[in-house]
Amino acid sequence: MEKKEDQQLQQEEEQVVNPWEVSAKDGGKIDYDKLIDKFGCQRLDQSFVDRVQRLTSRPPHVFLRRGVFFAHRDLNEILDAYERGDKFYLYTGRGPSSEALHLGHLIPFMFTKYLQDAFKVPLVIQLTDDEKCMWKNLSVEESQRLARENAKDIIACGFDISKTFIFSDFDYVGGAFYKNMVKVAKCVTYNKVVGIFGFTGEDHIGKVSFPPVQAVPSFPSSFPHLFSSKDDLRCLIPCAIDQDPYFRMTRDVAPRIGYHKPALIESLFFPALQGETGKMSASDPNSAIYVTDSAKDIKFKVNKHAFTGGQESIEKHRQYGANLEVVDIPIKYLNFFLEDDAELEHIKKEYGAGRMLTGEVKKRLIEVLTELVERHRRARAAVTDEMVDAFMAVRPLPNMFD
Amino acid sequence: MEKKEDQQLQQEEEQVVNPWEVSAKDGGKIDYDKLIDKFGCQRLDQSFVDRVQRLTSRPPHVFLRRGVFFAHRDLNEILDAYERGDKFYLYTGRGPSSEALHLGHLIPFMFTKYLQDAFKVPLVIQLTDDEKCMWKNLSVEESQRLARENAKDIIACGFDISKTFIFSDFDYVGGAFYKNMVKVAKCVTYNKVVGIFGFTGEDHIGKVSFPPVQAVPSFPSSFPHLFSSKDDLRCLIPCAIDQDPYFRMTRDVAPRIGYHKPALIESLFFPALQGETGKMSASDPNSAIYVTDSAKDIKFKVNKHAFTGGQESIEKHRQYGANLEVVDIPIKYLNFFLEDDAELEHIKKEYGAGRMLTGEVKKRLIEVLTELVERHRRARAAVTDEMVDAFMAVRPLPNMFD
Repeated sequence: MEKKEDQQLQQEEEQVVNPWEVSAKDGGKIDYDKLIDKFGCQRLDQSFVDRVQRLTSRPPHVFLRRGVFFAHRDLNEILDAYERGDKFYLYTGRGPSSEALHLGHLIPFMFTKYLQDAFKVPLVIQLTDDEKCMWKNLSVEESQRLARENAKDIIACGFDISKTFIFSDFDYVGGAFYKNMVKVAKCVTYNKVVGIFGFTGEDHIGKVSFPPVQAVPSFPSSFPHLFSSKDDLRCLIPCAIDQDPYFRMTRDVAPRIGYHKPALIESLFFPALQGETGKMSASDPNSAIYVTDSAKDIKFKVNKHAFTGGQESIEKHRQYGANLEVVDIPIKYLNFFLEDDAELEHIKKEYGAGRMLTGEVKKRLIEVLTELVERHRRARAAVTDEMVDAFMAVRPLPNMFD
Repeated sequence: MEKKEDQQLQQEEEQVVNPWEVSAKDGGKIDYDKLIDKFGCQRLDQSFVDRVQRLTSRPPHVFLRRGVFFAHRDLNEILDAYERGDKFYLYTGRGPSSEALHLGHLIPFMFTKYLQDAFKVPLVIQLTDDEKCMWKNLSVEESQRLARENAKDIIACGFDISKTFIFSDFDYVGGAFYKNMVKVAKCVTYNKVVGIFGFTGEDHIGKVSFPPVQAVPSFPSSFPHLFSSKDDLRCLIPCAIDQDPYFRMTRDVAPRIGYHKPALIESLFFPALQGETGKMSASDPNSAIYVTDSAKDIKFKVNKHAFTGGQESIEKHRQYGANLEVVDIPIKYLNFFLEDDAELEHIKKEYGAGRMLTGEVKKRLIEVLTELVERHRRARAAVTDEMVDAFMAVRPLPNMFD
């Protein structure tokens, strides 16, 4: 009975953030400070940004210096270890539920590519085709097809094949990976996963079985072809904060089965074109810019659907300026993707003061997004099936720390 | 709430039979007729025994003609298919929780060996080391060690290596097998497994995840190195009736994911030396004859611990005869292992009439068991590690239907 009340309480909370649902109360904004408190992670403050810059001798990624990756768990331990000369590895992933990725999907991969380059570390990328087969009721074959299609988009982000192993759960689960799944599962009660993930008795047991699958890439022994049993590596997971529940569970279990807790670096959600009420929806194509959108699509979507803080008439806009207190999507998106800090500041200032019109900001955003999407499209077109096979081959990575 | 009441009701029932607990009410006898009704399987009557004899052109195994294998599901369909010239395969298994097997453990394997020889069919044997790791809290390594030790006892039962694949879950789960696990898991709700297996919220999710692992060897596509996707084979599972819950679940799911329901042939429990209150207990060495027991151990255990229906004095015994209405363990055990029907009938008649004394029956039982155990010990001593590797090699079995 107590559990039931807990769940009810959870539903009555202001915002719901878990791997399957992100929603603020009454369509408002996600309160990330509250989320940090609730989840128990730490805010990633400027001292971390400075330290990463110092340790890697390169400018921090725009997502880092603009607070897109805004929260963490034990990132200090990763940086301490790195400073001592110890190695770590990166782990991220994707649930392949749709053929075309949108810009929000690219964010963790763009950032992970930066981390791999900056720290010169190996990376494992999990494609949870089993999860999507179970949650979205796709066939095994369709989930695997989507996993390979998504792998092409991921590879197009520029990962270094000598340091990167991409795997599909359907292909890879087994052996040491499965043994770790069992070790994790033994440490987590059903009541615990109900508390973390909100499962109900009418959910199928595939859902209940899945959390250990996403947990175990956090442990190097799950990849015997990559890491030797002597490698006492730590793991750093870049992800959107909705994945935190999986890794809270993983961190809880890790020391009980003799492993390091994985560290996390967590991002905000990329807002929908209609405004910042949560993640974008794959079911509404007008809510997001897809990597398959044409220049014309992008222009149409931004002009037609992007929610702004601009005033209703040019006169009012000139007088009052854009309201940047509410979510202004063109500014939000430029904050993610316009790399030039000076230009971004300039636009914000001019737009906020009414000297720059919404149409002008949108025009600049359309340029930035079109260039990004075109660049991605060209990179993806160059990814062959042979390259996918090569990234997904179960193999050692002898030069992964070079 | 309803579910909770269901569980409570289950606990208040007269007898509990599930894969982890077999107990009659108040230490009485298991009521197998009630079990058949409750589980919804069929009694295996004489017409089946006759039909098996006719189809295989050999005398039915003693376990078949004496009703040790007493219940079934869809055995008629297997026999119909066999009569038409269609193929089937056998699937049985063992949870490797202890080093030394007792006689009760050997029964399904002795019977499966007969079925393999009689029908000339392939056989898969699952060693659920993952299950025992989770339920008995053994380490992965210890579970795998026990699996290999138990494999030696199983091989010693005389299986044909050209028709037999033995696998450990920890080694084998993955690929097509894992895909089938996910397909099964998608079709079974948590409430359903609670109803079947009696899990509670405090049970770990490893337990909740396990039923699909035991389900999927029922489907030939789980073994791509053995069966091609064109092979539309049926599966027959010989097992003790406590395993029925797994396969009720499997049979419920099978047609929904495009597979045949597995057929079952199910045995009674082999009674403990102290009497027929359930299965033997691995924790009480005096409750069972182990395959590692010496002739002296066997003599001691039978003479000291075997519960009998003999009278308290020789005079009374001569006058009234043994009470064979209560469980008489020497007669029960001879019923399993004394192959000569005429001799068994003679002993029952003489013992029941008081002309044969308990000590004489025990003496004959000691001879029979000592011979059985000695024969097993010799066969097991001849099983090398190389033979275990060969039986467990993931390989095709090109002559499995010859």
